[in-house]
Amino acid sequence: MRRSTAILLVSCPDQIGLIHTITEFLSRHNGNIVQLNEHVERPDNSFFFRVEWELEHFTIPKSELAKELEKALFSKYEMQWQLYFTDEKPRMAVFVSESSHCIYDIFSRYFSDEWFVEIPAILSNHRTHEALAQKYDIPFYHFPMSSETKADQERFQLELLGDLKVDFIVLARYMQILTPEFVANFENKIINIHHSFLPAFAGAKPYHRAFERGVKIIGATSHYVTQDLDEGPIIEQSVAKVSHKDTVDDLKTKGKDIEKMVLSRAISLHLQRRVLVHKNKTIVFE
Amino acid sequence: MRRSTAILLVSCPDQIGLIHTITEFLSRHNGNIVQLNEHVERPDNSFFFRVEWELEHFTIPKSELAKELEKALFSKYEMQWQLYFTDEKPRMAVFVSESSHCIYDIFSRYFSDEWFVEIPAILSNHRTHEALAQKYDIPFYHFPMSSETKADQERFQLELLGDLKVDFIVLARYMQILTPEFVANFENKIINIHHSFLPAFAGAKPYHRAFERGVKIIGATSHYVTQDLDEGPIIEQSVAKVSHKDTVDDLKTKGKDIEKMVLSRAISLHLQRRVLVHKNKTIVFE
Amino acid sequence: MRRSTAILLVSCPDQIGLIHTITEFLSRHNGNIVQLNEHVERPDNSFFFRVEWELEHFTIPKSELAKELEKALFSKYEMQWQLYFTDEKPRMAVFVSESSHCIYDIFSRYFSDEWFVEIPAILSNHRTHEALAQKYDIPFYHFPMSSETKADQERFQLELLGDLKVDFIVLARYMQILTPEFVANFENKIINIHHSFLPAFAGAKPYHRAFERGVKIIGATSHYVTQDLDEGPIIEQSVAKVSHKDTVDDLKTKGKDIEKMVLSRAISLHLQRRVLVHKNKTIVFE
Amino acid sequence: MRRSTAILLVSCPDQIGLIHTITEFLSRHNGNIVQLNEHVERPDNSFFFRVEWELEHFTIPKSELAKELEKALFSKYEMQWQLYFTDEKPRMAVFVSESSHCIYDIFSRYFSDEWFVEIPAILSNHRTHEALAQKYDIPFYHFPMSSETKADQERFQLELLGDLKVDFIVLARYMQILTPEFVANFENKIINIHHSFLPAFAGAKPYHRAFERGVKIIGATSHYVTQDLDEGPIIEQSVAKVSHKDTVDDLKTKGKDIEKMVLSRAISLHLQRRVLVHKNKTIVFE
Repeated sequence: MRRSTAILLVSCPDQIGLIHTITEFLSRHNGNIVQLNEHVERPDNSFFFRVEWELEHFTIPKSELAKELEKALFSKYEMQWQLYFTDEKPRMAVFVSESSHCIYDIFSRYFSDEWFVEIPAILSNHRTHEALAQKYDIPFYHFPMSSETKADQERFQLELLGDLKVDFIVLARYMQILTPEFVANFENKIINIHHSFLPAFAGAKPYHRAFERGVKIIGATSHYVTQDLDEGPIIEQSVAKVSHKDTVDDLKTKGKDIEKMVLSRAISLHLQRRVLVHKNKTIVFE
Repeated sequence: MRRSTAILLVSCPDQIGLIHTITEFLSRHNGNIVQLNEHVERPDNSFFFRVEWELEHFTIPKSELAKELEKALFSKYEMQWQLYFTDEKPRMAVFVSESSHCIYDIFSRYFSDEWFVEIPAILSNHRTHEALAQKYDIPFYHFPMSSETKADQERFQLELLGDLKVDFIVLARYMQILTPEFVANFENKIINIHHSFLPAFAGAKPYHRAFERGVKIIGATSHYVTQDLDEGPIIEQSVAKVSHKDTVDDLKTKGKDIEKMVLSRAISLHLQRRVLVHKNKTIVFE
Repeated sequence: MRRSTAILLVSCPDQIGLIHTITEFLSRHNGNIVQLNEHVERPDNSFFFRVEWELEHFTIPKSELAKELEKALFSKYEMQWQLYFTDEKPRMAVFVSESSHCIYDIFSRYFSDEWFVEIPAILSNHRTHEALAQKYDIPFYHFPMSSETKADQERFQLELLGDLKVDFIVLARYMQILTPEFVANFENKIINIHHSFLPAFAGAKPYHRAFERGVKIIGATSHYVTQDLDEGPIIEQSVAKVSHKDTVDDLKTKGKDIEKMVLSRAISLHLQRRVLVHKNKTIVFE
Repeated sequence: MRRSTAILLVSCPDQIGLIHTITEFLSRHNGNIVQLNEHVERPDNSFFFRVEWELEHFTIPKSELAKELEKALFSKYEMQWQLYFTDEKPRMAVFVSESSHCIYDIFSRYFSDEWFVEIPAILSNHRTHEALAQKYDIPFYHFPMSSETKADQERFQLELLGDLKVDFIVLARYMQILTPEFVANFENKIINIHHSFLPAFAGAKPYHRAFERGVKIIGATSHYVTQDLDEGPIIEQSVAKVSHKDTVDDLKTKGKDIEKMVLSRAISLHLQRRVLVHKNKTIVFE
């Protein structure tokens, strides 16, 4: 029932006529636009663009499209671009540690077909969720981590992810810090959930610190992982009201609800190719 | 400091090439696009479009623009259109009754230049806010209303609004029902605030009914006024949490905060020409 | 680790000295109060009260407590009362139809021990979730429903619920209307989730109607089931922003997230014995 | 119409029987309790309590009450206490600089009698709002500030506040840092609004920094002023969604709406004597 469409994401220096040029190309090849978004980031006059169009009567075959776009558009305007076809299922690896709220929420959407995605593997530094993965016939890989083994384990993980043709990674409350080497392999393709409204309470034990500080709202932040811990481009944030009645454990419980929702929304946006990264910020074409 | 721009709002039946055609026109006349939004309403395949571009280097003078657009675009595609220039100040009349929270919020934005708008008149069926209007040197017009005088009074009001070249009307908790004759003069140009999250509690005494029903959230709804009471196209809504502790008076107090914020947001959206009406719904290009 | 406490819920006509009388009783028997809440509903001067105290050094044994309270308090003040011990696990039956978002959210909390509850059975009019229930070793009972079989099936259901000593029922998007006879067996003990912010869009197809009306927020409502469809006492409500971009399917998808969260919060409140019903409203002692 | 009530706020080490003891005292003197709240802060086992009761049939005169409470309760249990009578109007001084959104919101509530409070003075380091104050016949005092004059000016301010019998101070976007000497005179009696969701973006230019970081929510925080800038006990916080479309100026405009609402809510809570300070946190008895 899903109509096949193409999604093109583009960024380049702004100039007059960019939208016209791109839409003229689509129009000329009989591409019916489903949705179009643009943004100009003023401080540095950068142009960002997302367009989705139907492939049904489009006159360029999928296999030729990148080449044709390169010739007609990308090379002329110094465009950075990404091209996706919505009938091709992205492959998402999920990293977990011991808490389960995010993985349940992901499963809920995955198995009800809310998302068009394939989960070829769950990776964990603990065996906690092995049985759960098995229930759902999702391959589970256990990579115990210690400071000595970390470098080796990450190399094994990368190998596995390569073998499984994984497109992007979700850290569903994965309590390990990834090395810069690992991150470099999946630039803007690792989605993390941090259990605070960043930049507040970056780092460890945010709920304890929120309790100490006596904040009246707590939050969660989903972001792409970069070399700098908790400093990557923010995709989505949400908050919940708390009060003096909430203990640290209450904050954790309330926080779980925000965390899982924020992470799943970030995954949805990523899957719909609505997120563009610019420097350390995101443009989210909702 | 405000850059002069033009804003074009368009709706027409959808077809391939519309965005390209419009942006080609702008590009050809050296119009630098500041922001562009489009929407296709699927059930009836209607196309909606908003584009804002800089006038500085644009090669068509303001006085010729409508004619040129008509020739090049509107007539060819059966477009309904609106054209605005952001250096021309819209004129907004404010109707009030006895409560003051909305008018204070409007004044707060008006006198701090948050809005680019002129308020040439406050109209009221009570004298309650005459002194307030005088404080701020805004002409105040008192139109007492009774079932006998209503028809006449509305005619006088319309005359006044015409004389003052009023572009649109804000009902800032104006507790009178406008007649269809009056409304017909300002189609989609009268913004009302209703003190419930419509369609819940349409009609009178929504806070009493919310209290009776025991809802855990209350809300407010800003909409364009149509012939059907509380049934017009919704522009903006918001809500607040309430509890069993709240009396009807508490609900009213909490409600005032939502009402004034929702109304002011609707005015902002209207002033920025971000709202298109389609049948009984709005497209809000945020 | 869970400290054993008793929870007493009381309602009666208001008068001076009620709190003093109850707390004096607890104090006299060495009951350390963990939390105390009171509310006086003004229109009819009804007093509502919830107190939780530690059992550790309390001098009345659990088995004697109701009798002692009856003698000392309940009979004197015409009190309606409920008494719970937090070391006794309540038994919750879950009714589902075909959608899965609520049941996943319930499982997520159940199996991570967020809730102190036992789920002895899942009942459904469809076989859709039989495999899911089996994965988790929760007995699944299939009760196909037709207008002819409904009365019989409900009788079988009641028998089963009795055999399983079920304390309360959660309708996790159960798409059947319960008969008054069924409801009478579980007064204020059936928690439903309705997919709108009641009283808006009561009845069928709320998302279609929300789309038609063009609302800018959608919501979900959890309430106790009464004889009148969608009219029972509201426990919890929440909303989400939507826009013209959202199709009916988008509303459904966004709505699922609100539904599952609102239902789970209502279950949490019920499990913590924080909800008192008064006429058709709830007092929720958060 | 306002019923005269007394409000007692108490904190002391927790022990069995405290609530009983206090309510027994009220009951014995015929005090009808309107509302009662308690909280035990677990880490240090501190007891916090707020009770409001009607004075109409209460048998102790206002003038004797503190003494009687001291004798019967406070001295026995090492209680820290505050006692208020709701028929006595608190006196609130408002400090402003150049922005006006908070002062308009305060006026809106003040002149519509939403608050039972007296504003005997507006103090400012600028003349910007002198005309506004005069419109409303509120005495305006101009205290220009420079690093040289600050110490002197603050002394003059304190003198004025003393003469005017000011009970508490609201910093309605007052862009001056108060000296520790000044703050010491109004401990937990100076309410500030900070334009970020603290602890994020403490200090200067929070909206610029929020823009740089690319957050998806912005916020505002109302807190009591202490010696440590932006580190005082938080009373209330709120947030708003933002996106890549928002410039720094847009963040400021959206932020103003949150700031004024959060500040006014904090003032309301303070006026209703619902806020207790414990170390660097608040207990807010809503």
